[in-house]
Parts: sequence; C-alpha cells; structure tokens
Amino acid sequence: MLVYWIPHEVPHTLPANASHRVGIGAFVLNHDGQMLVVKEKSGRSTGTWKLPTGGVDEGEDICMAAVREVQEETGIETEFVELLAFRQSHKSFFGKSDLFFICMLKSLSFSIHKQDAEIEEAKWMEIEEYASQPKLNQSELSKIIANICVAKTKEKYTGFSALLTTTGLSGKKCYLYSNI
Amino acid sequence: MLVYWIPHEVPHTLPANASHRVGIGAFVLNHDGQMLVVKEKSGRSTGTWKLPTGGVDEGEDICMAAVREVQEETGIETEFVELLAFRQSHKSFFGKSDLFFICMLKSLSFSIHKQDAEIEEAKWMEIEEYASQPKLNQSELSKIIANICVAKTKEKYTGFSALLTTTGLSGKKCYLYSNI
Repeated sequence: MLVYWIPHEVPHTLPANASHRVGIGAFVLNHDGQMLVVKEKSGRSTGTWKLPTGGVDEGEDICMAAVREVQEETGIETEFVELLAFRQSHKSFFGKSDLFFICMLKSLSFSIHKQDAEIEEAKWMEIEEYASQPKLNQSELSKIIANICVAKTKEKYTGFSALLTTTGLSGKKCYLYSNI
Repeated sequence: MLVYWIPHEVPHTLPANASHRVGIGAFVLNHDGQMLVVKEKSGRSTGTWKLPTGGVDEGEDICMAAVREVQEETGIETEFVELLAFRQSHKSFFGKSDLFFICMLKSLSFSIHKQDAEIEEAKWMEIEEYASQPKLNQSELSKIIANICVAKTKEKYTGFSALLTTTGLSGKKCYLYSNI
C-alpha cells in the first residue's frame, strides 16, 4: 500500500490501526457486602481467588462487557455501578497494548452456576479475606486494586459512572465515563 | 488458520485481536487559569476552538501521549495532572472501536509555536468563552466535557491520577489510573 505522499518527504496521514485490546475485571458485591470470586482452571493465577475477568468484544461497551462476563462465568445477574480504575500495559499481545478496566457491579441474583470450561470454583467471599491472600499481595497492582475495592465498600472512593450520550456531531450513541 | 479444536463443536480459545484505537484530548491550564485551544485546518470541527487532540501511539502511555501531542501541536511543555473522563465509541474505523481520554495537564511554558500542517490557530482562552461556543454546544458530548473542565477549575470534580506500578506477577511497568 502506498503510504508516503509525493513529494516523498511529506509524511503520510493514514490513521494508525487498532492498537489496544480491552478487558474488564468485575468487582461484584451482594446485599451482604460479600464479593464474587473465582478460581481459574489455568493461567498464572490458579490457586488464587480473583475477580471474574474477561475480554471486551468488538463493538461492545465496557459496562455491558462486565455484566456479560460475570453472567457467563458465574451465572450471576448484575447491574453496572461504577468504573473504579484502569491500567494500561504494553507489548502484552503480539506488540499490541492492553487496557484493563475494574468495574464495580451490584448483584441482582445470588445463586452461582459456574461455567466449567475456564472456572474451577466460584463463590461469595468476605472482602478482607480476598485482600489478604498471600499470592495476590505479591503483585503490586493486584494489591492496589484490592485496596481500591476495600475503600469503595467504605464509601471512601470516587469512581466514574457511565452516561449514555451521543458522540460528536454524528449523533451516534456512546458512553462517557466520568465523575459527574 | 485452524481455529476450531477437534472435536469441532468445542470453541477455539484464541484471544481476540486488538479492537480499539486510543486517543486523547488535552485540557491544558496556564497559571492565569486560561486554557489552551486550537482550530484545526480540516475535519468536522473547523471554525471551533477545541482541545488539542491526537492519537496514542502503539506502546505509548496515555499520560505521555497527552504531553507529546500538546508539545507537537502547540509547542507548549506540560505535565500530566489527572484523567477527567473518557468515552468509548464503536465502528469509528473499519469496524474498530475508539477510546478517547480527556487528560488535564498543567502548562510549564506559555509561548505558543503552533504546528502548521494540521493547526490553523492556537491560543490561550478563558474557559467560559470556550464553553459558550455555539457549535460546541450542538454536541451533547462536547458540552458535557466542557462542563467537566469548568467544574475541575472550581475544584468540584474528582478525576483519576496516574500511578506508575508493576503489572501482575511479571513485574512489567504500567500505569494505573485511579482516584487513590
């Protein structure tokens, strides 16, 4: 493909291709203040209770992806509450980058029906017990995220809510995540 | 490429390719409380004073991209303060999605040297004047973002700051954006 204009010292102005994959981690609370945790069958975090996580599909909203992944992995119905934090990492997939959004959700059902392909176990757990797992605390990032979740349960943390609006002048629907 | 396992009714587990482009809009304040605005030479928003915007390069951190874009478009040196909001839109580029992050920056220099290729004009402007532009107010999203910027100058808004940490157990450096 011709990407340099004539004269050739002028840079091309083609927009860059998609550069990021997007994933979510779901912090789901039930009415008793317990959180939903899973143990995965494979991967780095086997043996540790962790947040349900998953990839955001092409064309999918982050807040919807969190609800879908929780339903798929655990059978729990939820509604999106707030986006608590996100991390950006690089070279995580064939040179591409990765954005991982921690979403807080409220459970609308309580009876767990785990998905067998990827999930070893799923249960409701006290947040303090989750946050005190030794392997989790070996990861600086996981430790901070656990602290944010604990702070949120004590109403000492302000996340971003999702507002359905329209983008630019085109009128397409989109979500804005902000603290308004 | 073979992507369905044998037996073929078992779904493949290949991760999805990159699905998102990432861009930034920069809300830059100087010591007098004025904001940095530009008029672009082409595109939908010609004639409107707007935030400097640009794409995040592959492998680049969002907070760094905002500083780089402002320097490239206006010659102004800045430092990252906070991430104020973001929107996710879909089918914006050959079926791919787009994440656009509004970053607040503090100016470290004041003399504008605009880039000629894309920028028609650049200047410092009162925020109220920016927010009252008729064309800007035709876009619901731009209006909300302008309101967030105004609220931030009145210290009535809590954004996400950027914390350099390490991802998972691999020890790679990454930024976590949160309100801690």
